[in-house]
Amino acid sequence: MGKGGIAQENQGEENMAAWLLGVNNLKIQPFKLPSLGAHDVRVRIKAVGICGSDVHYYKHMSCGDYHVKEPMVIGHECAGIIEEVGSEVKSLLPGDRVALEPGIGCWHCNPCKEGRYNLCHDMKFFATPPIHGSLADQIVHPASLCFKLPDNLTLEEGAMCEPLSVGVYACRRANVSPETTVLILGAGPIGLVTMLAARAFGAPKVVVVDVDDHRLSVAKELGAAEVVKVSSDTQAVDKEVEEIKKAMGGPVDVTVDCCGMSKTVSTALAATVSGGKVCVVGMAHCQMTVPLTPAAAREVDLVGVFRYRNTWPLCIEFLSSGKIDVKPLITHRFGFTQKEVEEAFETSARGSNAIKVMFNL
Amino acid sequence: MGKGGIAQENQGEENMAAWLLGVNNLKIQPFKLPSLGAHDVRVRIKAVGICGSDVHYYKHMSCGDYHVKEPMVIGHECAGIIEEVGSEVKSLLPGDRVALEPGIGCWHCNPCKEGRYNLCHDMKFFATPPIHGSLADQIVHPASLCFKLPDNLTLEEGAMCEPLSVGVYACRRANVSPETTVLILGAGPIGLVTMLAARAFGAPKVVVVDVDDHRLSVAKELGAAEVVKVSSDTQAVDKEVEEIKKAMGGPVDVTVDCCGMSKTVSTALAATVSGGKVCVVGMAHCQMTVPLTPAAAREVDLVGVFRYRNTWPLCIEFLSSGKIDVKPLITHRFGFTQKEVEEAFETSARGSNAIKVMFNL
Amino acid sequence: MGKGGIAQENQGEENMAAWLLGVNNLKIQPFKLPSLGAHDVRVRIKAVGICGSDVHYYKHMSCGDYHVKEPMVIGHECAGIIEEVGSEVKSLLPGDRVALEPGIGCWHCNPCKEGRYNLCHDMKFFATPPIHGSLADQIVHPASLCFKLPDNLTLEEGAMCEPLSVGVYACRRANVSPETTVLILGAGPIGLVTMLAARAFGAPKVVVVDVDDHRLSVAKELGAAEVVKVSSDTQAVDKEVEEIKKAMGGPVDVTVDCCGMSKTVSTALAATVSGGKVCVVGMAHCQMTVPLTPAAAREVDLVGVFRYRNTWPLCIEFLSSGKIDVKPLITHRFGFTQKEVEEAFETSARGSNAIKVMFNL
Amino acid sequence: MGKGGIAQENQGEENMAAWLLGVNNLKIQPFKLPSLGAHDVRVRIKAVGICGSDVHYYKHMSCGDYHVKEPMVIGHECAGIIEEVGSEVKSLLPGDRVALEPGIGCWHCNPCKEGRYNLCHDMKFFATPPIHGSLADQIVHPASLCFKLPDNLTLEEGAMCEPLSVGVYACRRANVSPETTVLILGAGPIGLVTMLAARAFGAPKVVVVDVDDHRLSVAKELGAAEVVKVSSDTQAVDKEVEEIKKAMGGPVDVTVDCCGMSKTVSTALAATVSGGKVCVVGMAHCQMTVPLTPAAAREVDLVGVFRYRNTWPLCIEFLSSGKIDVKPLITHRFGFTQKEVEEAFETSARGSNAIKVMFNL
Repeated sequence: MGKGGIAQENQGEENMAAWLLGVNNLKIQPFKLPSLGAHDVRVRIKAVGICGSDVHYYKHMSCGDYHVKEPMVIGHECAGIIEEVGSEVKSLLPGDRVALEPGIGCWHCNPCKEGRYNLCHDMKFFATPPIHGSLADQIVHPASLCFKLPDNLTLEEGAMCEPLSVGVYACRRANVSPETTVLILGAGPIGLVTMLAARAFGAPKVVVVDVDDHRLSVAKELGAAEVVKVSSDTQAVDKEVEEIKKAMGGPVDVTVDCCGMSKTVSTALAATVSGGKVCVVGMAHCQMTVPLTPAAAREVDLVGVFRYRNTWPLCIEFLSSGKIDVKPLITHRFGFTQKEVEEAFETSARGSNAIKVMFNL
Repeated sequence: MGKGGIAQENQGEENMAAWLLGVNNLKIQPFKLPSLGAHDVRVRIKAVGICGSDVHYYKHMSCGDYHVKEPMVIGHECAGIIEEVGSEVKSLLPGDRVALEPGIGCWHCNPCKEGRYNLCHDMKFFATPPIHGSLADQIVHPASLCFKLPDNLTLEEGAMCEPLSVGVYACRRANVSPETTVLILGAGPIGLVTMLAARAFGAPKVVVVDVDDHRLSVAKELGAAEVVKVSSDTQAVDKEVEEIKKAMGGPVDVTVDCCGMSKTVSTALAATVSGGKVCVVGMAHCQMTVPLTPAAAREVDLVGVFRYRNTWPLCIEFLSSGKIDVKPLITHRFGFTQKEVEEAFETSARGSNAIKVMFNL
Repeated sequence: MGKGGIAQENQGEENMAAWLLGVNNLKIQPFKLPSLGAHDVRVRIKAVGICGSDVHYYKHMSCGDYHVKEPMVIGHECAGIIEEVGSEVKSLLPGDRVALEPGIGCWHCNPCKEGRYNLCHDMKFFATPPIHGSLADQIVHPASLCFKLPDNLTLEEGAMCEPLSVGVYACRRANVSPETTVLILGAGPIGLVTMLAARAFGAPKVVVVDVDDHRLSVAKELGAAEVVKVSSDTQAVDKEVEEIKKAMGGPVDVTVDCCGMSKTVSTALAATVSGGKVCVVGMAHCQMTVPLTPAAAREVDLVGVFRYRNTWPLCIEFLSSGKIDVKPLITHRFGFTQKEVEEAFETSARGSNAIKVMFNL
Repeated sequence: MGKGGIAQENQGEENMAAWLLGVNNLKIQPFKLPSLGAHDVRVRIKAVGICGSDVHYYKHMSCGDYHVKEPMVIGHECAGIIEEVGSEVKSLLPGDRVALEPGIGCWHCNPCKEGRYNLCHDMKFFATPPIHGSLADQIVHPASLCFKLPDNLTLEEGAMCEPLSVGVYACRRANVSPETTVLILGAGPIGLVTMLAARAFGAPKVVVVDVDDHRLSVAKELGAAEVVKVSSDTQAVDKEVEEIKKAMGGPVDVTVDCCGMSKTVSTALAATVSGGKVCVVGMAHCQMTVPLTPAAAREVDLVGVFRYRNTWPLCIEFLSSGKIDVKPLITHRFGFTQKEVEEAFETSARGSNAIKVMFNL
């Protein structure tokens, strides 16, 4: 895609995509589909979810260290139907329904060669400037990053593999298993998919913490064993940790912090058992003041995550086997028109009780 | 020993030990040697080193969360000669020269059963209140924690296995190997033994950082590939990280922070390569303000250490094979008299160019 | 217990146990209960299962390298109710229902200290000569090896934790997870518990192979995704591997061989995907002729298991949560009388459709 | 290269390579250099070593399951000087001296994406039919598989990175470290590089076993702590294992079998400590009769290796730091003429005291 694309020739049909042109300024406009490389497929996009980072670009033209300097197609959670396959593609056929993994590694750098391609030095990732995203009627993508959906999964569930991958990868990094209880801090979309993933990895008990009653009630409905309401008072960590431990009814082996604030990391470090793991997924604060050494002295290890790797097959297995159901997370649906694109982003930006906003193209 | 001892009968001979009675108040006084359990040995102590924690107890009657509430024998870095072995002891004989591992696990709790006995819920550790230490003419200790010294090692080197174990265990936790460059923050005794351990684990390049010229020169003499002088200015992290990377001449795979201050952890997080590891050994600050999420987003993992486990055989192998030489670290020696005990602790407390202060009994 | 016991005083009451006196010669006779150590509990045994090794001792007075040279109490799969606790026991109370882990490590040797206590150099294990077993009205055992059963589990399920532990540990050693398909060779009691464990660890597909139709039908009922009937013809490996792969419908990531014969190991090596794992649990043959190097050249690793370690809490969690149901495995029940003990062992020895034979005391 | 090449245009200069045309039939003939892809480099080859597999192809037109059906350029252990770099290559410049890793992964399959590219489903590997090798005056190769040599290494040492990689990778797979003693079975070229690698990984003691006195004397000269001469008598395993353990003077933690025969694997399984590892590198026998279950019951794990992955940087570090010296292994040198190519292969085939035969081009 975009500068990451493999070829530059046009395909005949005029393709359309949602371009981010400026703050609060998204326009459906033509874009030129790259021609098909030998290992690529052309996919008709049918479902695209909106992620918090998409909204952040829409509202600020930046996210973390990335800045949108030129018009960029938005979107990266997607699924569609194969239209055409490159000459070397053997695993897929036109008509196949596929979920797309959004990041293309370089396969030349050490992280790629060592199997940690999410840390690739030259990753091309949908809708991370200057690479174009996937909220478009068609895109061209490497076949090896397109995963065939079984008949019992919808294209929307295919698009949900992307956010679910974050939860799945966090659980993998934290070694969540039938032998680890899990505490999830934050019941937003990522907290919820992490809870679902932790349960699917067999965690015997998953407790979810948030400041918001509605979010907690959703977490409970979706399978949290217990939920604990906390405040935003940074002085309340000790008291709240006691409540969390009581709700867990035993040691917290793994904590996944889906907020990433001083208070939540402090809570995570204090709540987790000696020798346990804290996985930091949320990134709300950069500088944070936390009691690091007492946790280090109890060998509570802290692991971070950057996106994910090799998660699509597992997500599809979890969804297809029914171990995870992501359909209740999709709270709003929109079509691919100028008006609906704007409404969809505004709905997602408002948050409130929107969990996942989905486009059907 | 002490409340952790296995039997209470006297041995005939009047035994003497260095009791910590109050702030700056150490007295050599009689103490009652516990009788010998079936799996124990009685050891005539010949060499005892002074650790920073010993000095902290001497100066404050506390260290971290531990408080000396009743008179306690001090000291935990020691080696000696077996005088008597319990009825079930097959691995050791009277006359054997041994280095002593100071902590006795309970072997009933989960961490003990899982091989992480350093996290034992009921550890009895020399000179950690209320357990007595080993600065005594004789002690009784489990045979399985006494490691026979080969002929080419001195009893002082045996006593040095204790501080060396901290460095060895930090390197193990951080997976130091011939495939990892290593950055050491802090060139005090623990920084130095960690540098020696990193080299013995095969690290191709070890760079040491400190604020003190003398310490850095010692580090260089003892084998650091490069040393970098830094300031205590917390605003200088970025600039100093650049200097460190330049000195390393490539990525820093592992950083071991032997200080544990906001600035050093910030430096560690920034200097370490994506996908690398930071091991926190020093514990100067509790609450610390650090840029945690940017490091988490690069999957720089943070691991802590609590003491060590199963390190004595490896320390003895490193010393005996000549891969590590700890003798230059022993800068001062004292006898076991009231006057010399006081002088020794004051010498160690003053720091300056004392690295390791050693008693010869 | 027996030579592994901690004390020798009598408890007043005359205790009875099933002594193996010779081939086919089991007698219920008095035995002297060891007195209670500070960390021990006295347990009234309520349920004991018969294991293949028990039957082997009964029929041959030996099993592998172990030979019964003096009368020995038989039995090691057991659960009961606490009667009395030692002075240092804090985790259990009289009246608690507990499952017992049968092996007592020495906690002095390297494997014990490294958390691999199943490889202990001086293990004392129920009914492994010369240590007495647990088919007795009462026994004395370390509290740390007695695991409290939750209210929703029966004492029979408690006793089943022992055979289930073999399956759980095999799955752990082979890294069975939601990311690994699993092939089980052999549908005897151990094959069945391994299948149940693999499913509980989240394996997306478990295929079971055996030569016996009845066993395969049991495996299918208990949750095997597919079963494959094979022959004992050693020339049929290639053809049968094709059938197995077809039944799996994709690569076999892990194979657990619960037979341990030349043919089954050959099948395991050939069926498992490059980079996968074969776990050898069964031990029917010692010398075996197998195509080892072709598998090694595909990095199919071969891991063995010896008993288990730290599995009781996980077994209890699997049973209590309903992830595993072992009740259907208990096909026969007997009381603790001379006549019934003999009948029970003969029933177990005949095999046929006996899976697990259980005593209720 | 060959069918794995990236482009088909000629480069002007007529290039020459050593073609294997039939049994004992190698001819230097012209070959058409593929044109340079964007991520490729063109390398003037300066040093090529002869491997046992090269000789096997020369003598049999096959090796294992691979058969030479069309004329094929031979050779895969090589180093040279960059002549030209592709448009996207940033890491290398003309004039750079480089060692070449011979296998090009597809980067589309699961093993490639998971960092186990040596198990790639579609690997293109020098001189593995139908892919051409590197005994040629120039070749074109991906830049990411060309590793710059530091000034203190020769091009011959660069070529030696290939066989050394086998030893390095075997040690990595077997977790060789300062905490593992190592037994090497076989003192041929692979046994010797494995011994050198084990020492560089810090193994405290490496014992080498062979049937040949000369090979053992070379092993001793190159750094084996002890050598043990064994026979080819398959009945002598028990006795020889005793001698090996005596020579080790303690447990054997890791055994690397560089022969791969029934007898050597039997020796490996019996000699290795409970909980240790056997790594099978040699592949002399396919079907082998070995006492597998007794070793499995002691949790002696068996791991195989296929070639290597990500080993060049470590080999270069080991060579450059002086931790490994491979120069003594180069026993014979030849130029790149028709006559010398034939002589070189015959010399290597005769074995006797040839260890490594090297071409200088």
